[in-house]
Amino acid sequence: MPLLREQLDTPVPVVLAPTGMIPTKAMTPHVPISPAEIADDVSSAVSFGISAVHLHARDDDGVPTWNRDVYADIITRIRERHPELVINVSTSGRHFSELEKRADVLALDGDIKPEVASLTMSSLNFLDGASLNSPETIRALATIMRDRGIVPELEIFDLGMVNFAHVLQREGILIGDFPANIFVGNIAGIQATPAEFGLAIDRLPPRAHWSGAGLGDAQVTATMMAIAAGGGVRVGLEDGIYLDHRRDQLATNSALVERVHRAVDVAGRRVMSPAEYRTVVLGR
Amino acid sequence: MPLLREQLDTPVPVVLAPTGMIPTKAMTPHVPISPAEIADDVSSAVSFGISAVHLHARDDDGVPTWNRDVYADIITRIRERHPELVINVSTSGRHFSELEKRADVLALDGDIKPEVASLTMSSLNFLDGASLNSPETIRALATIMRDRGIVPELEIFDLGMVNFAHVLQREGILIGDFPANIFVGNIAGIQATPAEFGLAIDRLPPRAHWSGAGLGDAQVTATMMAIAAGGGVRVGLEDGIYLDHRRDQLATNSALVERVHRAVDVAGRRVMSPAEYRTVVLGR
Repeated sequence: MPLLREQLDTPVPVVLAPTGMIPTKAMTPHVPISPAEIADDVSSAVSFGISAVHLHARDDDGVPTWNRDVYADIITRIRERHPELVINVSTSGRHFSELEKRADVLALDGDIKPEVASLTMSSLNFLDGASLNSPETIRALATIMRDRGIVPELEIFDLGMVNFAHVLQREGILIGDFPANIFVGNIAGIQATPAEFGLAIDRLPPRAHWSGAGLGDAQVTATMMAIAAGGGVRVGLEDGIYLDHRRDQLATNSALVERVHRAVDVAGRRVMSPAEYRTVVLGR
Repeated sequence: MPLLREQLDTPVPVVLAPTGMIPTKAMTPHVPISPAEIADDVSSAVSFGISAVHLHARDDDGVPTWNRDVYADIITRIRERHPELVINVSTSGRHFSELEKRADVLALDGDIKPEVASLTMSSLNFLDGASLNSPETIRALATIMRDRGIVPELEIFDLGMVNFAHVLQREGILIGDFPANIFVGNIAGIQATPAEFGLAIDRLPPRAHWSGAGLGDAQVTATMMAIAAGGGVRVGLEDGIYLDHRRDQLATNSALVERVHRAVDVAGRRVMSPAEYRTVVLGR
């Protein structure tokens, strides 16, 4: 365990999750849906400073899609403007559970091959229903990622999900350094208390590089706790559409990233560059 | 347990601890030692916004003293300028362990009677040696406070100290609402990790109103975690003389309070007024 001051000396990994599966234009006009809109939001965030972007794709009707062609369009637009940025894609099973669909994006290659892909570590309930991630699906996705040289980003919503990371590591399916998001505030997951958040962090296996993410009202709490305790941050409209816990102000991705920077300043830290993210978090 | 958003809606209790037992002018020119210097630092902090001040007295040579006359001088100066501010005094046994000395300040009366006094909840080791607080001394100090209508502020450096708060409550020595400081970062206490900090908070007995305090490098971490999680903050040169974890910049009490305000802004909260502190934290 490094000293606190060594942890605070580590720059803060900041991953923007601009879109997700849930927000619609009806819920907030600020959510980027089309590839062009997503690329614009990413550019604004890059101008403040982020390490990586976590992408979800939507079809022409704004509905979540697993189609690699849409991901290809988004990634091409982002890579053109920001060739250095780390690209992380979703393999979420929240809207489509079949392995072939979820893994479709992992087949992208060449300049648009993703470097990181999400890996949710168990089945769980969200506010709007169940999300199925069976052990065999998780193992299959992780094996494809390992074999393709794509680093999994572990998505952890409860303490049991941390345990499964140990299992995958023992099985040799999870190898090397990897990022792990600790999500707090889900209706059926750990909440945004220091104890629950901290227990999840402390139980992570070796070579995990943790970040805090908060759903809904918990977003600013997760951001501040994580930065204060030496971790990283995932932030964006995917996790919550309001800026404030009173739900008075709709957030923008830029406003969320700007707030992360203010919290980083208070802590006397700085945001990690994409190059540093590759070295420190992805072990490259 | 209130919802997170209800906790974030509660204003942030901010207690300034400007002097303490340890810092000297040789260590930092910014530590206020004389009653006039202490009153000046309190005034600067009040202009930013604080809820209460936690006072230690020094003699003419700058050495910690239990003498109520010095406390009377400090409190008179503060009350003249800031009659609304909550005054909290030390009963620390770090330099003098006799009950009569430690309780001397509790005899102040009338306009200069302290409203709150510190109560360290066990013996412990600091960086520079042992500090003795036997169960009978703690009970005796708490009983004097209870009988004089002075609210104890519990000083908690480890999980076992939380347990003793339950004991005092069962014994009827600790009554009503009271503040509790969770200190992280002492060399022989809980550290500034979310898990250790959170376990202490979660174990507090009913009617405790918690704040985070960090020693040395842990000060900014404690401040941010506490504000993010719905708690209060104790801050000041008593707990650390540097502003940054790199120990490049000597802090001032004003700079520490200003940083608390920035963290409060990031969280979308506001600082608790002294009048609110009396109602919410002291139950008056």
